[in-house]
Amino acid sequence: MINEKMKKLGVSRSTIRELFEYGKKLKAERGENYVFDYSLGNPSVAPPDAVNLGIASLLENVRDVELHGYTSAEGDINTRRAIAKYISEAFSAPASYEYVYMTAGAAGALVSVLGALTNENETVIALAPYFPEYKVFVERNGARLKPVMCKANDFTPDVDALDAAIDESVAAVIVNSPNNPTGAVYSEDDIKNLASLLERKSKQYGKPIYIIADEPYRELVYDGKEVPFIPNYYNNTVVCYSYSKSLSIPGERIGYAFVSPRADDAKTVMRAICGAGRALGYVCAPSLLQKLVPSCIGKTSDIKLYEENRRMLYEALTSYGFDLVYPSGAFYLFLKSPTGDAKEFSETAKKYGLLLVPSDDFGCEGYVRIAYCQSPDMILRSLPYFEKLVGEYKKESKNN
Amino acid sequence: MINEKMKKLGVSRSTIRELFEYGKKLKAERGENYVFDYSLGNPSVAPPDAVNLGIASLLENVRDVELHGYTSAEGDINTRRAIAKYISEAFSAPASYEYVYMTAGAAGALVSVLGALTNENETVIALAPYFPEYKVFVERNGARLKPVMCKANDFTPDVDALDAAIDESVAAVIVNSPNNPTGAVYSEDDIKNLASLLERKSKQYGKPIYIIADEPYRELVYDGKEVPFIPNYYNNTVVCYSYSKSLSIPGERIGYAFVSPRADDAKTVMRAICGAGRALGYVCAPSLLQKLVPSCIGKTSDIKLYEENRRMLYEALTSYGFDLVYPSGAFYLFLKSPTGDAKEFSETAKKYGLLLVPSDDFGCEGYVRIAYCQSPDMILRSLPYFEKLVGEYKKESKNN
Repeated sequence: MINEKMKKLGVSRSTIRELFEYGKKLKAERGENYVFDYSLGNPSVAPPDAVNLGIASLLENVRDVELHGYTSAEGDINTRRAIAKYISEAFSAPASYEYVYMTAGAAGALVSVLGALTNENETVIALAPYFPEYKVFVERNGARLKPVMCKANDFTPDVDALDAAIDESVAAVIVNSPNNPTGAVYSEDDIKNLASLLERKSKQYGKPIYIIADEPYRELVYDGKEVPFIPNYYNNTVVCYSYSKSLSIPGERIGYAFVSPRADDAKTVMRAICGAGRALGYVCAPSLLQKLVPSCIGKTSDIKLYEENRRMLYEALTSYGFDLVYPSGAFYLFLKSPTGDAKEFSETAKKYGLLLVPSDDFGCEGYVRIAYCQSPDMILRSLPYFEKLVGEYKKESKNN
Repeated sequence: MINEKMKKLGVSRSTIRELFEYGKKLKAERGENYVFDYSLGNPSVAPPDAVNLGIASLLENVRDVELHGYTSAEGDINTRRAIAKYISEAFSAPASYEYVYMTAGAAGALVSVLGALTNENETVIALAPYFPEYKVFVERNGARLKPVMCKANDFTPDVDALDAAIDESVAAVIVNSPNNPTGAVYSEDDIKNLASLLERKSKQYGKPIYIIADEPYRELVYDGKEVPFIPNYYNNTVVCYSYSKSLSIPGERIGYAFVSPRADDAKTVMRAICGAGRALGYVCAPSLLQKLVPSCIGKTSDIKLYEENRRMLYEALTSYGFDLVYPSGAFYLFLKSPTGDAKEFSETAKKYGLLLVPSDDFGCEGYVRIAYCQSPDMILRSLPYFEKLVGEYKKESKNN
């Protein structure tokens, strides 16, 4: 019998994907130049040369049956070693290949890690606003997602709210900094406060509460900000990383889960992640991409372009009178709806060809997300339409 | 809290993977030339030139942000169209891109389709012996796997046994022909008999019982045998296909699920598959590989090499006195344990460096699986060790 839950997930789709598909249709109707698709975090900045050069070199130099063959379920040993070496050098953190599990992107890492660390009826806390698929991934395993709102002024963690929200049922807290959708980057103090709260709560309930650090935007930070490496502050941490954004290869599905060797039962956690990946049908992460990683590690696309997009949009939108928080990382702006109604605002924006994701699915009302990983040209052309959009609300408030 | 079920799955590993890892260690100890790893279905025959040429051409001709970017969750539209066209031409079956969902290999297809078509406490029948991961994939969703043994003489479906086994709880039957692990290829009559049984049972219980046709070995058939395309015989069929074996690219994780447009509620089934894939964290199948498919469709590795391996092994093993069924497809031989104990036989074989997978995990006792997708050179060198192995049992039976 058709599974009703899966049917619903397939029919409803994610709001982001829905808007993305709508955008494709709208472009066919109105023409490419009259649709400004800010829906999807699909990088527009070219991958670094190392990506295509690396693939070409693998095609040239590695025997093809080996290159395209199965790797171990955990991943290619050389790739895992290269990642462990990078982690220990870049973050001065203990690491070894035994704690690196290659995955099909951060999503593959998250579902495997959630599968490993949660049980039916346990709770996973997400700092809201949060990436909507967290809910889908958490509920798949029979656990519950509990959103805890960040501070409204800068969208950093509200430790008091967390303190009040964590009960015995909490298995893990998902931390996503640089944040999607707000662009907030949590400071070292934020992480220290969070760590000390979770240590206290773990002690109180006599079990580890894990941090699942979802870090696909780790390298996308501006204004010289630093992203603290959470395993250096909290032992029971599993990092979910993806090369999707740093290398502009989101479609290729390559990332990893890294269990801090300092975690309680780190090896058992690692084995449970492997088991969860197995049950999910993840035989191994794509082999060509796995083998590409060592030559691309630490490299990124030209992030300056995102920084420039951010400046251009932030300055224009604030000058038009929009209310938005200054983002320090990722490639998202979180824009307040003039009426406080996110869906209405997103619908009105569509009239101007502006595709902005309403915040409701992010576990937060009254905002839209703008993914500014688009071409500067598109952003520039979209500005007059943003101005018209805000004008509509100014008119309204005058008329009222 | 660490999920015990996932921990167990991760610690126990699949028997096949376990043996593969053991083989890697043994090679390091004894030397490459003294270990004959027949464990894993990892093709040894080079991919057709079209694979590496196709990748090189994509790198050359497609804008890199597009090439490596997200596709729709269902997959790249051109790829889905090319697959639908191929299905309708090669099998004279109705097909359209709307019923093709690109996946990370057949495993990704199977978990998504099982997620879509099964519910807690429902039953999925596997024709035994069956690929062991079916059990993991089925149980993940809270359903039960019920093995129904094939006929012992040729490992084709036993329709009477199926008739007796199917009750109201059965949601689907997994059909895997050419078969892993037996190499059996089901005839048109086998499929017709199965279809008519399932039509009768569906009517009786007032709900569709689906066939999930797991077909990664579709092209690997010998002696001019034909593999019937099941959607032409049974409407409620979903095909799970992978390019892993046909193109010798198992590590790359590329395949698809195809819902027969003639299935009841075909569109809803398709949406439920998308929903299940979403919950499993399958954002999209690897984009470079998706885009490679149209230029490789219908091409295969040089299958003659497998056919030659099969002949060489089959002739040698039967001449030594082993008991085995003549296989018509895939790249597996299913060898009877001389004592009827599969595990003991597999352990004894290890002494001779022969890695043979015991059949117990395939839902069938007393056999080992030999994956002959290895180099002809390795197979040739292994033959004296098979002879010594059988000698050990002859000695024993003399002594007894």
